[in-house]
Amino acid sequence: MAQLTYDILFQSGNARIGKVKTVHGEINTPVFMPVGTQATVKSLMPGDIWDTGSRIILCNAYHLYLRPGPDIVKAAGGLHRFMNWPGSILTDSGGFQIMSLGHMVSISDEEAVFRSHIDGSLISFSPEESIRVQAALGADIIMCLDHCTRSPAPYDVAKKAMDRTLLWARRAQKTEVSAHQSLFGIVQGSIYPELRKQCALELACMDFPGYALGGLSVGESKQEFYDILHYTGEFLPREKPRYLMGVGHPLDLIEGVMAGIDMFDCVLPTRNARHGRAFTFSGPLNLKNARFAMEFAPIEEGCDCRACQSFSRAYIRHLFSARESLAWTLVSIHNIRFFQRFMDKIRKCILDGTLAGFRREMEKLYSAQGDCRG
Amino acid sequence: MAQLTYDILFQSGNARIGKVKTVHGEINTPVFMPVGTQATVKSLMPGDIWDTGSRIILCNAYHLYLRPGPDIVKAAGGLHRFMNWPGSILTDSGGFQIMSLGHMVSISDEEAVFRSHIDGSLISFSPEESIRVQAALGADIIMCLDHCTRSPAPYDVAKKAMDRTLLWARRAQKTEVSAHQSLFGIVQGSIYPELRKQCALELACMDFPGYALGGLSVGESKQEFYDILHYTGEFLPREKPRYLMGVGHPLDLIEGVMAGIDMFDCVLPTRNARHGRAFTFSGPLNLKNARFAMEFAPIEEGCDCRACQSFSRAYIRHLFSARESLAWTLVSIHNIRFFQRFMDKIRKCILDGTLAGFRREMEKLYSAQGDCRG
Repeated sequence: MAQLTYDILFQSGNARIGKVKTVHGEINTPVFMPVGTQATVKSLMPGDIWDTGSRIILCNAYHLYLRPGPDIVKAAGGLHRFMNWPGSILTDSGGFQIMSLGHMVSISDEEAVFRSHIDGSLISFSPEESIRVQAALGADIIMCLDHCTRSPAPYDVAKKAMDRTLLWARRAQKTEVSAHQSLFGIVQGSIYPELRKQCALELACMDFPGYALGGLSVGESKQEFYDILHYTGEFLPREKPRYLMGVGHPLDLIEGVMAGIDMFDCVLPTRNARHGRAFTFSGPLNLKNARFAMEFAPIEEGCDCRACQSFSRAYIRHLFSARESLAWTLVSIHNIRFFQRFMDKIRKCILDGTLAGFRREMEKLYSAQGDCRG
Repeated sequence: MAQLTYDILFQSGNARIGKVKTVHGEINTPVFMPVGTQATVKSLMPGDIWDTGSRIILCNAYHLYLRPGPDIVKAAGGLHRFMNWPGSILTDSGGFQIMSLGHMVSISDEEAVFRSHIDGSLISFSPEESIRVQAALGADIIMCLDHCTRSPAPYDVAKKAMDRTLLWARRAQKTEVSAHQSLFGIVQGSIYPELRKQCALELACMDFPGYALGGLSVGESKQEFYDILHYTGEFLPREKPRYLMGVGHPLDLIEGVMAGIDMFDCVLPTRNARHGRAFTFSGPLNLKNARFAMEFAPIEEGCDCRACQSFSRAYIRHLFSARESLAWTLVSIHNIRFFQRFMDKIRKCILDGTLAGFRREMEKLYSAQGDCRG
């Protein structure tokens, strides 16, 4: 039971191809992690997820802390056994959800106090408690509790949140975890380069096995997002995996890879699936559209996913019209498989030196979208 | 492309073990058919259904007529290809749904006129139209349009509906279908033995490849239901498969088999699954119950379904608490597998002569429930 290892296999500019190894297997990077917020990637069996080529998924400590609770997951033998997922798992610390879902009551250097979005009960969450919860869940990669702010945040608010994130990272690092767990630090600092730089450098001194960029794609402009992404990337240790939290959109994945990011997660493929929106290499499709009623081709010609192998656009459109949950399942399978094929393509483009061309091609098909951290 | 064949392999009292063959494969009888109302067994992939041991499912001509419409299904290559189901399919004619879902405007010997439950549009449905729809859908077994009444129905209402059902059966039989399709007649007559007898005998003269009992478990008492079931069974041709529509409950399956029934369908396993109710050979369970929060055993020890092989009661309870659709999928898989194992057990009991004992055992665990025709 050891922590993760990370090896860079190839590099071109800031983009790199690598391999993360955890006790639950190997992960080719850059990697996209489907989101299983509540210990299930919505509407999918674990085998369906595995068959998309996914080898690591993200679950949320905040959600699982509230329900079913870490004691139950621990008694089940940990999250992997609880949800029967054979691959690796990363748990988010709860920092983002406290901001986005909980009704914040107060936040101090000691802890965050918020009301549960489920039953309104009052909950205190400290950086130590977040790690204890994540230790009980047993994910391979766990995250420090961070103080997230929405963008744009005033400088002093962003500074305070960044300082607190650093303080909490130190306390998280002193909290005991299982031997197989790797704790990542999270860089905050909103859209302010000097805050991002300070946070990245101080975290680097603490020698985490991996580093995340948080608080991006939370309301700032696309240009601000990209600028901070590239700028901050320069100060993250090169020999460690770098994770851009809650991103994202196909164009953002390419941008992230160009900035040296290795790991991404986003609810986009599954959330869009439930609304009938499919991703393809020819652009997005809305499968609820009447024009698909008589189209007996698969969602995407040449796609090897189980939905495309066996079902037509017309059938899937019918399932949406009839409000049948199999619709969500089939398009989720396709969309996650698309994201994995998209990462395969990105890795190939890094090797070929064709990533910029691929980005231009995708820019014609996809326009950028906003936040989608689960 | 030939019609179905039916062979009786063993008989004990009225109960019989047989084999139905369609162009889509063999079906061991007595058989339970899961319901896929809208060309999907709710929340399940076709492979999941197949893995429960199911080899024939039921779809509804009424629903598929309204949405997506028979032209689309026909253009897709028929229902089997549309929904990617390799086994056999039976389509119900729409008679029951016109009564239960549509807002009946008028019914005459010519046709039923009703309002769609989807958009309120006015629809005329004749026995010929029902067959044309079912011919376009292409199911292996199709049903005559019948005039269903709720129970209790006054004698004159039941008599009129039975006469009309016979008239419509004659017209249905004259309507063209595909060579591989087998048209079953439906016996109506409510709770009146003389009406049931007349209907059964007249249909028998028309020489259908199979016969169904309709209009049962629609409001009459359990004793009335069982009395009519056994009484009518005596007048149905022995050499043909007999189908008890919309039934049912485990105890009703046993009663039906004892009355010589070979085929059953019911939404009970999938509908109950979506409410957290699981069937087991030790009795029913409500998986939403708090007592399962820390139970890491499968739904049913010894069950070979995919849900029991890989997931705990605690995990499934969590999925229900979190309102995750994977909960429906897992319990639907288990419940349908339970119904198939239940039919395996019934077939074994027929061979062993132990069916009465098995019924007494199940009566201790399950109390009877009402109507569940899809």
